[in-house]
Amino acid sequence: MDLNADMGEGFAGVSPPDDATLLTLVTSANIACGFHAGDPVLMRRTVVEAAKRDVAIGAHPGYPDLLGFGRRDMAATPKEVTAYVIAQIGALDGFCRAAGTKLLYVKAHGALYNRAVRDAATADAIAEGVRLFNPSLILLGIPNTELIAAADRAGIPAAREGFADRGYRPDGTLVPRSEPGALITDPGRAADQAERIASTVDTICVHSDTPGAVQLVRAVRERLIERGHTIAPFAR
Amino acid sequence: MDLNADMGEGFAGVSPPDDATLLTLVTSANIACGFHAGDPVLMRRTVVEAAKRDVAIGAHPGYPDLLGFGRRDMAATPKEVTAYVIAQIGALDGFCRAAGTKLLYVKAHGALYNRAVRDAATADAIAEGVRLFNPSLILLGIPNTELIAAADRAGIPAAREGFADRGYRPDGTLVPRSEPGALITDPGRAADQAERIASTVDTICVHSDTPGAVQLVRAVRERLIERGHTIAPFAR
Amino acid sequence: MDLNADMGEGFAGVSPPDDATLLTLVTSANIACGFHAGDPVLMRRTVVEAAKRDVAIGAHPGYPDLLGFGRRDMAATPKEVTAYVIAQIGALDGFCRAAGTKLLYVKAHGALYNRAVRDAATADAIAEGVRLFNPSLILLGIPNTELIAAADRAGIPAAREGFADRGYRPDGTLVPRSEPGALITDPGRAADQAERIASTVDTICVHSDTPGAVQLVRAVRERLIERGHTIAPFAR
Amino acid sequence: MDLNADMGEGFAGVSPPDDATLLTLVTSANIACGFHAGDPVLMRRTVVEAAKRDVAIGAHPGYPDLLGFGRRDMAATPKEVTAYVIAQIGALDGFCRAAGTKLLYVKAHGALYNRAVRDAATADAIAEGVRLFNPSLILLGIPNTELIAAADRAGIPAAREGFADRGYRPDGTLVPRSEPGALITDPGRAADQAERIASTVDTICVHSDTPGAVQLVRAVRERLIERGHTIAPFAR
Repeated sequence: MDLNADMGEGFAGVSPPDDATLLTLVTSANIACGFHAGDPVLMRRTVVEAAKRDVAIGAHPGYPDLLGFGRRDMAATPKEVTAYVIAQIGALDGFCRAAGTKLLYVKAHGALYNRAVRDAATADAIAEGVRLFNPSLILLGIPNTELIAAADRAGIPAAREGFADRGYRPDGTLVPRSEPGALITDPGRAADQAERIASTVDTICVHSDTPGAVQLVRAVRERLIERGHTIAPFAR
Repeated sequence: MDLNADMGEGFAGVSPPDDATLLTLVTSANIACGFHAGDPVLMRRTVVEAAKRDVAIGAHPGYPDLLGFGRRDMAATPKEVTAYVIAQIGALDGFCRAAGTKLLYVKAHGALYNRAVRDAATADAIAEGVRLFNPSLILLGIPNTELIAAADRAGIPAAREGFADRGYRPDGTLVPRSEPGALITDPGRAADQAERIASTVDTICVHSDTPGAVQLVRAVRERLIERGHTIAPFAR
Repeated sequence: MDLNADMGEGFAGVSPPDDATLLTLVTSANIACGFHAGDPVLMRRTVVEAAKRDVAIGAHPGYPDLLGFGRRDMAATPKEVTAYVIAQIGALDGFCRAAGTKLLYVKAHGALYNRAVRDAATADAIAEGVRLFNPSLILLGIPNTELIAAADRAGIPAAREGFADRGYRPDGTLVPRSEPGALITDPGRAADQAERIASTVDTICVHSDTPGAVQLVRAVRERLIERGHTIAPFAR
Repeated sequence: MDLNADMGEGFAGVSPPDDATLLTLVTSANIACGFHAGDPVLMRRTVVEAAKRDVAIGAHPGYPDLLGFGRRDMAATPKEVTAYVIAQIGALDGFCRAAGTKLLYVKAHGALYNRAVRDAATADAIAEGVRLFNPSLILLGIPNTELIAAADRAGIPAAREGFADRGYRPDGTLVPRSEPGALITDPGRAADQAERIASTVDTICVHSDTPGAVQLVRAVRERLIERGHTIAPFAR
């Protein structure tokens, strides 16, 4: 089983405080590309640190919304979304090449991810950007959503992810962040949820800005190992 | 002989008015990468149009200074410059891949170019970014400057450029934009200058924001053809 | 009757080409405040030029979306909208003070305006920002919409505007820009529409980026004068 | 004696961690205005919190350089600097008005401050922006520098500041941040320095991003009270 977390979501040289520790615990790093967070110096440093620890590197493109951390929906057209995705993947891929490593996957961020989960046109726009850039990159998404369907339509590989730190509704969708129960911050409960969903997904995400993220990832990791899972990058 | 011009230096979907015509006249397009001008949608469109006309594509990275169009010097460190260059080349390369074409060279913009001409540390920082991204990319610079020396030190190919629309001082440096004589806007004089410098350089630049740029490029092109030059991309 | 147009919607020192002419024709200038377009140098210059020609000055705040020219809806919260409005009005007011003139009104831009027309929470957020900054500023809006209702609820003055260059649907709302008939670019038809709506509004808008904007404003102005209207700022 | 600190230097809703505590210790808050750090929501919140604690509010304008936190020199012209200062003061003043409080002073940030200390044209450009906006605002600067001289030339009030957390050279200038001895992080040494300079300045600054800033301010405050100083805003 793979564990992924968002990384490099600081700005102007401020490293997110937990990134160094998280890189010792997760197996895949979704690295911000400067549109919702991240700047070139931080992108480069995060790629170098991830590569050093043999953590798989994914691009984490978002809407161009620094003021809203990419968490607000924007009426960007599919054509705009495709261009935003290519620019962000391209920049992060540049830092991977510079570090002598490889970009392996793409996971959309925040409001862009949430829209793509349910909106086929947005999902297709993302998948199109990925395919045009490099059709062997893997697109991450929630199982049974438009994101996964779009990867299939585009003919690019997809991987399924679940969340240890987010509440699920009975229909398998996430509880929105604006509602109670959106976040799971108790390490034991996060580990329970990870254990429960592990058989249905390729990777389990803990958001690095969930309070106590390090403790959550640690608890999830230990539980999965106890239950006999091998913790390794999904993308290799 | 090659003719190059800066392209895609609009913003938010506003195409620079002369780009379409310039693409029928030049053989190399230095395309802005979003830091001093340009946005992802415009970058993509400019790459596609250049590729259609078989114009060679170069990245045109600048300082992160949209408010100053990248024409103001900034005390960015070499480490910052290298990261800025990689992010910008990477993004533009993404659009080249998406368009099924190849990025061939890199030409720094404005104040970054001007500093690199005379400052070895900045020139090395640019050359290092290019080399780390792809050591077969050609770095453009003014002959006998730190930029060319930096390409040599980094072991990457360099090409020499002259300017048809900028005044030269007797020592071979450009008249600064803040001084009289900085710009040549008479097509005949620009053609004269192009003819004079053609034997010493690999490519001749006309800035697309010099007043009457289209007329200048046309006059330069016709004169060079009259004098027996073949107009073709330097980078192929 | 008053004529208003958006001004200062360039960036990085590029003056919009028609602003100088438009300032001789309109009586109110909605000046961009740097969030969707405009930069401090251009804001200052536009304020100074408007004041010179005795054109009334309004702030034209938009979403923080330079890449989309403020024309894309964004899920900004009411609290965010109020803060964005205050920051933009404050900055433009600073340039009015510096020029020895007065800011008189506020007109929201693009997607922010469109959302506020139909969404009470957004309209209230804008009106709240205006009221907190200076309750004697006039808020511009389409008659019988949430924007006008919000001004009333906030206890600030409102003014009604109509559009000479935008198609109306039978219910009085505008034809969306994505649909045919959204723009009126024939000067005669724009003058007809202006004449028709003049009795129901306080000011008539022509967008400065509608093709042929100068001809449209001129035709509207001449027609209204022919019909006996006095052309003067609504805000004085 | 007054104690001042920079505040609101976060971004996108991330409050700087120590601001709440610092507001209980200092008497003047230099609040970032969105150009080098800060965003409208954070600006508003910081103004409201400062006003609640009766802390005097100053604008803290910087270069438009989010990626460099305003700490890199930029070759902005005096005209650009004046426009940047007005836009930033205006925005912060908007939040002061909205909170029912008053903006009292202006302190330039980072590289803009450092350039103005030694460069008369930059200092005049700042003082001109302040004077045009409101000539009763107080301009903060280092004693015997161009900043103070510029305030005198512009006919606006000036206040002198010293630094408890920065090393001084024998000639009274600060040790540059790139050199050893630039920062004083020992609370006792900071208190010693504050005590030593208290008779020569109107306000003492501790930078909120100096490691241990809260401890430094506390030590300075206690020492000054022990020595019989009353801690109160310089600007009232």
